[in-house]
Amino acid sequence: MPHLVILYTPDIEKDADIPALCRELANTMLTQRDEADRQVFPTGGTRVLAYPAAHAAVADGSGEYGFVYANLRMGTGRSSAVHKSVGDALLATLRQRLEPLLAQRPVGITLQIDESPGQVFDAKHSSLHPLFTRA
Amino acid sequence: MPHLVILYTPDIEKDADIPALCRELANTMLTQRDEADRQVFPTGGTRVLAYPAAHAAVADGSGEYGFVYANLRMGTGRSSAVHKSVGDALLATLRQRLEPLLAQRPVGITLQIDESPGQVFDAKHSSLHPLFTRA
Amino acid sequence: MPHLVILYTPDIEKDADIPALCRELANTMLTQRDEADRQVFPTGGTRVLAYPAAHAAVADGSGEYGFVYANLRMGTGRSSAVHKSVGDALLATLRQRLEPLLAQRPVGITLQIDESPGQVFDAKHSSLHPLFTRA
Repeated sequence: MPHLVILYTPDIEKDADIPALCRELANTMLTQRDEADRQVFPTGGTRVLAYPAAHAAVADGSGEYGFVYANLRMGTGRSSAVHKSVGDALLATLRQRLEPLLAQRPVGITLQIDESPGQVFDAKHSSLHPLFTRA
Repeated sequence: MPHLVILYTPDIEKDADIPALCRELANTMLTQRDEADRQVFPTGGTRVLAYPAAHAAVADGSGEYGFVYANLRMGTGRSSAVHKSVGDALLATLRQRLEPLLAQRPVGITLQIDESPGQVFDAKHSSLHPLFTRA
Repeated sequence: MPHLVILYTPDIEKDADIPALCRELANTMLTQRDEADRQVFPTGGTRVLAYPAAHAAVADGSGEYGFVYANLRMGTGRSSAVHKSVGDALLATLRQRLEPLLAQRPVGITLQIDESPGQVFDAKHSSLHPLFTRA
């Protein structure tokens, strides 16, 4: 945790630099601070994964419509102020990177944050996380 | 919103026309009406994304088993009657398109609708949506 | 139901046998028993789908970091003891299969189980499930 997963229509792939977007979104997550000025997301637990769809249908199909959906799943217990500042920051990064594309043709961006809904089990095992938590 | 995401075993790809299924599911969503005869899903916000798995395991692995999972995530506040009529309509479209495949070999279809579970942030930015909301 | 979906960074693909991992995870699910010694997951409804990301960003990007996220979505109504035993068993399978990779380089594994969060509609249609429920 947290996991930011990006699902998008395949047409986006050729028109936007998604690897760079992933890196920028991860960087945005890493710079988030809470009310006590602590890092919101642990460095070793910050992940962004991007998936172009194999097939898609958007709206009424009458134009070259694109769509980018970003979903952040984060642990429970953060304040709504943190949710808002994290969401605003991620949306700003998405807009900055994708604005040129939106200006060219009709593309929709949606960002949603979920707080581990319905979660009944959570376990981690990692040789990555400890790299960033050693004193 | 809403987003219909289809996850399926890779064997389905060669045996069913998934691009056509995506379009038909989007059309099904666009024709849904609520109790007040309003369109349930905004045209510019209707999206279907399909993802064949790279690898899969189904049941006990003893046959050429296939699986199609469709998940619709929609906003909160709709009646259970709307949930049911939307679900019934989408399942009918899935069945109509996939029935020939189910008759050939063992394939399972599951459709689930979630009402934005655990959502703590939601934002949109779009050059697509406005195309369908102008007077 | 249940659906186990595995999302992972693309670097994992070349370093681990994901098809075998899928099969082993399905087998693990099939051997789970509840307090009354009944099979927790129906054979015909057990599915594992694996998706390497097209693009990813992990942690601060300073190393060859990998990440495997496994999410099991299961129906409501199981006890927390069942959730824990299922989670422990799946994590053990993930660790056994991926431990050599974690020893080579920094890789994080996360397993989460969700109990159908926010679900408002659920329907199945299958020519697969009946194969395993006939007397």
